[in-house]
Amino acid sequence: MNTKTPLRICIIGSGNVATHFTRVFHCAGHYIAQVYSRNADHARRLAEETEAEAISGMEVIDRTCDLYLFSIKDDALPSLAAQMPETSGLWVHTAGSISIDILTAHHERSGVIYPLQTLSRSRDIDFSTVPLYIEGNTRETEKELVALASEMSRYVYVCNSLQRAALHLSAAFACNFTNYMYDVAEQLLEEYNLPARSLEPLIAETTAKYAHMRAVDAQTGPAARGDRQTMDKHLKLLEDHPELQTIYRTLSEAIEKRQNNYKKEKRHE
Amino acid sequence: MNTKTPLRICIIGSGNVATHFTRVFHCAGHYIAQVYSRNADHARRLAEETEAEAISGMEVIDRTCDLYLFSIKDDALPSLAAQMPETSGLWVHTAGSISIDILTAHHERSGVIYPLQTLSRSRDIDFSTVPLYIEGNTRETEKELVALASEMSRYVYVCNSLQRAALHLSAAFACNFTNYMYDVAEQLLEEYNLPARSLEPLIAETTAKYAHMRAVDAQTGPAARGDRQTMDKHLKLLEDHPELQTIYRTLSEAIEKRQNNYKKEKRHE
Repeated sequence: MNTKTPLRICIIGSGNVATHFTRVFHCAGHYIAQVYSRNADHARRLAEETEAEAISGMEVIDRTCDLYLFSIKDDALPSLAAQMPETSGLWVHTAGSISIDILTAHHERSGVIYPLQTLSRSRDIDFSTVPLYIEGNTRETEKELVALASEMSRYVYVCNSLQRAALHLSAAFACNFTNYMYDVAEQLLEEYNLPARSLEPLIAETTAKYAHMRAVDAQTGPAARGDRQTMDKHLKLLEDHPELQTIYRTLSEAIEKRQNNYKKEKRHE
Repeated sequence: MNTKTPLRICIIGSGNVATHFTRVFHCAGHYIAQVYSRNADHARRLAEETEAEAISGMEVIDRTCDLYLFSIKDDALPSLAAQMPETSGLWVHTAGSISIDILTAHHERSGVIYPLQTLSRSRDIDFSTVPLYIEGNTRETEKELVALASEMSRYVYVCNSLQRAALHLSAAFACNFTNYMYDVAEQLLEEYNLPARSLEPLIAETTAKYAHMRAVDAQTGPAARGDRQTMDKHLKLLEDHPELQTIYRTLSEAIEKRQNNYKKEKRHE
């Protein structure tokens, strides 16, 4: 594979991640031959963007592509890799939590390009700032994938499958759970007739702090202070939301414990 | 109270919020007469910054101040307000979750200036961008406090005690819990020997998304997709952290339910 000549690429999947990769490969001058999705409409929608062929059956996969990018739901990946016809070219998946083995079991030249970023179809992102974590089944494959990834992003790293799984897990905390906290906050603002954007400066500063200090040092709020009275008031305000009460209690206890342990550690240093 | 002539101010408290208010009052040309803290060292440390008198007993409070700013732990506020000697001047607290009544019960002219921001002593912040939520026990007091707050910040709002409590609660979700998610992610990166700053682009984009779309629409990740297999893998990676498993399960279930309900709502629209 020579990354200086355009590659023939087959995209397997049509979700958020597949969409961003398809666009960025296309922009980089590569040729999107096919877009596969079980759902023919989804395949067509994405294929049209890049003048690719939309397919919804594995049996019509173009076997002459240089690269097959598997970008589908994690739980569909094992069975789809098993159904995949023999091809030459590289097989690459984009999943954080899935080992490279799922591909190497079926194909000789395999790898992973994992974008550590939250990608929504509807939101444009400067892909050159998206960190890409690479794994290849051989040193040769790894080198090829690093070269390809470096065309797309300024931040290309190599890591193994276990480290990638840990990255994916920490991303669930730092992004998915964080975003859900924003969602809960928005629901509360609406319930109490407060402007939807009231928390923007607070959220901006919470993120800005993260860039400058360790999160454990940046922790503020009633749980960090062990202020039970305020926590009880908050729980009372959540009376009509038993699920949010559970979340509030679980996280407050964890924060209190973490801060107590951390303060102990610091005293012993 | 004429906000054009410098005020004599007594600061009651020496924590993060008291520190920021002391500095900003001082910079605005007001006169910090005293800083009270039960802990004499803490009082001294903050008083020195503004050439104020440090006191650690309520009985030596200067009764001639124009403004007494109560900025102490929420659970200490009721008893301290009760112990406070009679004074003229305005009594103001800065607590999100505490009703104005805690002051009006003991003093005629009372109010609240609640800064909706995460303030750490060690981190400078441009106070003119901190949203200040005002309440006064009379229209007159409210007007005075709005004028004073407007000297310090460009974002001054009036809200009642219940709305302020809801703001404070939503801030716990959007800031304190969010920051704890960052802390967990940092712990995981360390455990798996990954660079501490790996998640910075992800966290930046999660926040950037918040400024442009509703959090419920921005939600990504295995829980949002209902991808049980990935969630099980994450739980397995957390085997040695039963508390983090509980948090992971609680939040994932909440996200899955929220996304299912939201999709149903959208279909019926």
